[in-house]
Amino acid sequence: MTTQEALFQYALRLGDTNLILGQRLSEWTGHGPFLEEDLALTNIALDITGTAKSLLEYAAQVEGKGRTEDDLAYLRNDRQYLNAQITEQPNGDYAKTIVRQAMIDCFDLYFYTELAKSKDETLSGIAQKSIKEVTYHLRHTTSWLIRFGDGTEDSHNRAQTAVNELWAYTGEMFEMNEVDAILIKEGIAVDLPAVKLKWEKHMSDVLEKATLVKPENVFMHTGSRKGIHTEHLAFILAEMQALPRMYPDAKW
Amino acid sequence: MTTQEALFQYALRLGDTNLILGQRLSEWTGHGPFLEEDLALTNIALDITGTAKSLLEYAAQVEGKGRTEDDLAYLRNDRQYLNAQITEQPNGDYAKTIVRQAMIDCFDLYFYTELAKSKDETLSGIAQKSIKEVTYHLRHTTSWLIRFGDGTEDSHNRAQTAVNELWAYTGEMFEMNEVDAILIKEGIAVDLPAVKLKWEKHMSDVLEKATLVKPENVFMHTGSRKGIHTEHLAFILAEMQALPRMYPDAKW
Repeated sequence: MTTQEALFQYALRLGDTNLILGQRLSEWTGHGPFLEEDLALTNIALDITGTAKSLLEYAAQVEGKGRTEDDLAYLRNDRQYLNAQITEQPNGDYAKTIVRQAMIDCFDLYFYTELAKSKDETLSGIAQKSIKEVTYHLRHTTSWLIRFGDGTEDSHNRAQTAVNELWAYTGEMFEMNEVDAILIKEGIAVDLPAVKLKWEKHMSDVLEKATLVKPENVFMHTGSRKGIHTEHLAFILAEMQALPRMYPDAKW
Repeated sequence: MTTQEALFQYALRLGDTNLILGQRLSEWTGHGPFLEEDLALTNIALDITGTAKSLLEYAAQVEGKGRTEDDLAYLRNDRQYLNAQITEQPNGDYAKTIVRQAMIDCFDLYFYTELAKSKDETLSGIAQKSIKEVTYHLRHTTSWLIRFGDGTEDSHNRAQTAVNELWAYTGEMFEMNEVDAILIKEGIAVDLPAVKLKWEKHMSDVLEKATLVKPENVFMHTGSRKGIHTEHLAFILAEMQALPRMYPDAKW
């Protein structure tokens, strides 16, 4: 694998993860629990989809085969997607959406803080912009998570159930493969085990404040680095890709 | 009718119009024709829903019966909604969404420019913020409308069909009743016939640039000022209100 190929895969992995998460989150638009929160969640979805667009644009440019970010977003099959499986998990109730989002926001904060130091100027630029957004997202979702966990018995139970269900998808966020190895050597990619230490400490603190139990010795799902996904991704893509696939050559 | 009652109705009318339009537009989120446009349309929906929130907040405050903007948004029936019927019309294809949006953006630009001069400081403040947003929206939707109209035969026909269908809902935007009469006397409300002149001129120019025909002598739907709606509103409300109605006393 050349550095160029690795960089393409890396940008795609990050781009897909943001694209699918943005898509999932935006399902809440117009269905949030109240107006203020509906607006907040839609704003978060917009930030994330914006980051996806920048990353897929860069992936297309690195690939250099004339594809655009829209070709990448709309004209691939699920096995060609490299998003982390946690992003494609169903929204569930509001507690589950918030728990998933808090887990990812926390990862993103430490991840993009490191990526901002990348020798690749485009990735570093995207990361710098992302840090500001993610800092706000994490504050928002963490405060909800604590409110749910330390709230009523019902909200506590919903939050704990969500933590238990989703924990098994967090291991994958820190997996590395040949792509990472090549790019870390070049000073481009982020060392994920270092991010993991910070993430675990941060999540432990938040869960403790929320009076929630951190799962231990959990089986971890894996596969997305190779394009293996849960059954949910195909449905997301079917919905997202319907219009562009129906009119592949449409002049808008 | 007291001035206070009229002001409540007026803020509700404007708030509902923005709320339902924002809801309709947000149905496109994640289903836009391509990433850039998906983001743009979601941003427009967010602006509009934000304006709705401010207006309903004010309506609740003017009413002074302890209701909040969420109570107004989620706990009323369709006959209690005062949104213009054009906002509840189905999105249809992308051309129809754009035509509807251009018609409303154009109205909003001239309307909020006048409302910014209102003696009511809250309405004037909301209007001032809105002008900036609406100016951008109108630029966006107008450029699309011209691109559709002056584009392929297919896109031209779709745009003309949408113009023909939606024109019948534009008359209602300029209707005035007792509410307007009371508030115009106080220097609070906008004189709609004056807005209509500017709107018609502007729309004529845009349609001409788009090589589209402006409908003449069209039957105009009416009723929303009295809470009468097309069959579509109830479905929008059912979807939007599902969660808050299921858990009316939820502590989030």
